[in-house]
Amino acid sequence: MHVVSVTLPHQHYLVVIEPGALDRLGERTRTVAPAAKALLVFDRALEATHLPRARASLEAAGFETVCAPFVGGEESKTLTTVHDLYDVLLGHRFERGSPVIALGGGVLGDTVGFAAATYLRGVPFVQCPTTLLAMVDSSVGGKVGVNVRQGKNLVGAFHQPVTVVADPLVLRSLPPRELRCGLAECIKHAVIGDAELFAWTRGHMQELLSLDPVALAQLIARNVAIKAAVVMADEKENGVRAHLNFGHTFGHAIEAGVGYGRILHGEAVGLGMLAAATLAGELRVAALGLRAELEDVVGRAGLPRRAELPDDEKLLEAMALDKKVSAGKVRFILPERVGAVVMRDDVPPEAVRAAWASIRG
Amino acid sequence: MHVVSVTLPHQHYLVVIEPGALDRLGERTRTVAPAAKALLVFDRALEATHLPRARASLEAAGFETVCAPFVGGEESKTLTTVHDLYDVLLGHRFERGSPVIALGGGVLGDTVGFAAATYLRGVPFVQCPTTLLAMVDSSVGGKVGVNVRQGKNLVGAFHQPVTVVADPLVLRSLPPRELRCGLAECIKHAVIGDAELFAWTRGHMQELLSLDPVALAQLIARNVAIKAAVVMADEKENGVRAHLNFGHTFGHAIEAGVGYGRILHGEAVGLGMLAAATLAGELRVAALGLRAELEDVVGRAGLPRRAELPDDEKLLEAMALDKKVSAGKVRFILPERVGAVVMRDDVPPEAVRAAWASIRG
Repeated sequence: MHVVSVTLPHQHYLVVIEPGALDRLGERTRTVAPAAKALLVFDRALEATHLPRARASLEAAGFETVCAPFVGGEESKTLTTVHDLYDVLLGHRFERGSPVIALGGGVLGDTVGFAAATYLRGVPFVQCPTTLLAMVDSSVGGKVGVNVRQGKNLVGAFHQPVTVVADPLVLRSLPPRELRCGLAECIKHAVIGDAELFAWTRGHMQELLSLDPVALAQLIARNVAIKAAVVMADEKENGVRAHLNFGHTFGHAIEAGVGYGRILHGEAVGLGMLAAATLAGELRVAALGLRAELEDVVGRAGLPRRAELPDDEKLLEAMALDKKVSAGKVRFILPERVGAVVMRDDVPPEAVRAAWASIRG
Repeated sequence: MHVVSVTLPHQHYLVVIEPGALDRLGERTRTVAPAAKALLVFDRALEATHLPRARASLEAAGFETVCAPFVGGEESKTLTTVHDLYDVLLGHRFERGSPVIALGGGVLGDTVGFAAATYLRGVPFVQCPTTLLAMVDSSVGGKVGVNVRQGKNLVGAFHQPVTVVADPLVLRSLPPRELRCGLAECIKHAVIGDAELFAWTRGHMQELLSLDPVALAQLIARNVAIKAAVVMADEKENGVRAHLNFGHTFGHAIEAGVGYGRILHGEAVGLGMLAAATLAGELRVAALGLRAELEDVVGRAGLPRRAELPDDEKLLEAMALDKKVSAGKVRFILPERVGAVVMRDDVPPEAVRAAWASIRG
């Protein structure tokens, strides 16, 4: 069993990573939320596979468990869905101590987490991620939120989970394309701060893609440790946490431009990292070989290295709407080398156009 | 000038109370939010009186100021209004550092504060309360939120302001009925923790009702100091902050039962305190003379001492939906004497019925 501890000024919680951990969801939840009822919001696609085990585990731990399905993907990550969750919580008279559990991927976790953050000004929130991407990224750190018409994640809160339960065995039901999306975030973590993990990930790519549980558990634990370290250093994203946005300034614009659902978040981040590496080269921030090294690993992970994109104007417009814009300037996280990134907000538009051209397929 | 300092683990802010402070709103905001733009959300009823001064002050301090009207009362304290505010913020491309300013009463401040708490996961929020109730209560402490169909304040967040600017002179435009509502919360503060202030308030009631600015400034400062002390001891309402709910468990049920708008929050709290005092007597928590003493001050403030109420079942049902319900038990804050309250959750229904009977008109 791997356990990563997240210690913040106001809160402390554990991320438990273990094959079979899903069956101990109830026990873990009981230790952090001594309440009578629990709300389990599950991805409808998991109704036949993981839901029964999660529910049985919660009931065995003494929770009267209300189950609510979450249907759809990014298009359901809305205030309307959050409102529906309020109705479920109010209909069952959930109180301040009652935990809300998210069983699903990052979109579900973000949405359910925002409901948990705002229902009665905040109730205990448990993350039980079922995608690699959610396990290594969104389930840790407390960023919750929804999309609005104007863009992604523009409404939200910081609401840390009381615990995170990650079971690598549940990834067996994950479509391969989604597994690869998780690997994109793992590559990102390695590039921003751990050259050794970068080499390990490249070296173990075949075991990871074939779902070897020992390799997956190690990958998840090492990535959660990086994410947790960044969050502990900068919970509210005033500084170093911005490094986690490596690949995301381009990535968000790709998602907005290509269309949510047509390209997945991890695919967009993979492309975004390549674009950022091109930009780093243009600006002489990175050594010459870095982009090729990154493209090699992105390719090994089975992620796209080029995509059909809208025209530059539309992409630049989408970037200007990014949350990380400060004083009208877009802030880019650029790789210096594997293991180190820098933030730059003085980037000429020609360099950004060159970056876009490098991934246009 | 009175200044009350609020120091919390993550944040420190000042509440400035001074006749004429409205004209220094911009200067105060500038010291805590060095941004280019500001959003000023104002009560439509203040458009001709206070808005021009607030706006001029912000513009003099260098803020490009976007003004957005808030129309209506409790019925506008909804997620729909919050969504409208997101649209304004997004339409003007507000960034993370740009302050959002609430110029109005508590309903406006709570709603605007929830938008500020959740837009981009939180932007700086400035409270410029224009009612006595908002000055002494809701503007300090960071509780923000909205109502949903099922009840009041059931959705929200803790989001502390970066500063609060309270100008007693703006109360000259306040309807007398609303002034009395503010006095209800002042009486509440005195009962929960300051017997000397209780006597002072009773002794200065005529000056207060006639809007003497020196007496008002002193009243506001002393009440903000009590509120701030409670918030500093217990920001997230895990303990002593619950004392501020004295009068509110009954009060919220009265508002829900009689109808928002037909009875004002402060009037309901005044009645709620009397009901709680009856309950305290029934349970032998309070000395015999306490209820009469409280009724005397409530009466001097011009607040109702009885009201036409729905039947007991409807009121008990409304109480059971209160946010402060824990493990199915309604928690009451009961006065022991002027200056001290206790929390009780073991109250028999007969005693609650007697409390309701004591204020039924």
